Amino acid sequence: MPKIELDPIGIIHSPFRNRSQAPFQGILSDEECELEIYEEYADGLKDIEGFSHIIIVYYAHKSEKHHLQTTTPWDTQLHGIFTTCSPNRPNPLLISVVPLLSRIGDRRLTVTNLDAIDGTPIMDIKPYIPELIVKQNVRLGWFEKVAITLKREKK
Amino acid sequence: MPKIELDPIGIIHSPFRNRSQAPFQGILSDEECELEIYEEYADGLKDIEGFSHIIIVYYAHKSEKHHLQTTTPWDTQLHGIFTTCSPNRPNPLLISVVPLLSRIGDRRLTVTNLDAIDGTPIMDIKPYIPELIVKQNVRLGWFEKVAITLKREKK
Repeated sequence: MPKIELDPIGIIHSPFRNRSQAPFQGILSDEECELEIYEEYADGLKDIEGFSHIIIVYYAHKSEKHHLQTTTPWDTQLHGIFTTCSPNRPNPLLISVVPLLSRIGDRRLTVTNLDAIDGTPIMDIKPYIPELIVKQNVRLGWFEKVAITLKREKK
Repeated sequence: MPKIELDPIGIIHSPFRNRSQAPFQGILSDEECELEIYEEYADGLKDIEGFSHIIIVYYAHKSEKHHLQTTTPWDTQLHGIFTTCSPNRPNPLLISVVPLLSRIGDRRLTVTNLDAIDGTPIMDIKPYIPELIVKQNVRLGWFEKVAITLKREKK
């Protein structure tokens, strides 16, 4: 299948300068980040300030060569990359649901709970609509054993 | 900023042959789809069958030229594209959280509640972990006025 070519719609300005500064998960961070949407896409933000949360799709441009199985910060086992949130995946497209704190002018948004490092390309922004995303009766595979740890570390 | 090049990790086999056959939202469909992951990425699926739901990131290869503001099936107003789920977006990367029905062999997964048409490239698969995605105190902007319609149409 041919390669797919995408143009970033903007860039993330973040206090995390490199991977070692960024948290394992965005929800572990209370830092503020700014999403700068490029001029040519600004009209696509019409009325976004009515939403309390947005979904950001971003490209982990500093991810390492991908592995198909990896360990995670949560335990010492090898897991299939598609059962993890590791940025070192075949296509390092990351997704975060974040609170939209404010809109500044026509093309800047401030958010928090984001793990992205400074300069990360933004590929898409979507509305967070729980009716479409929230599921019941969920089984979490290997992650069930570590979920308690995640909650404990969250501030 | 330079273009970003991605290689699909698989392909979706779906009963929807074209856009007019596909539902507006995956949750409106009870049809079964098969995700075929290419051989070279199959090892990344290790232990995925332990998860009841997965997140699929796919590329809407039949999306039309994008618009920055668009109407939706839900009302007659123009909305910023980044406040909608329209596939006609600058980067037509779509996200669905779907129930994982079964794993067939080492590289095929069956799912439902998916709006993708046959032949859609799969870019990524992620675990669905409510602790990372589910938010409280949500405001839905213009979508609040149409949410009742969505629920009514869902089977």
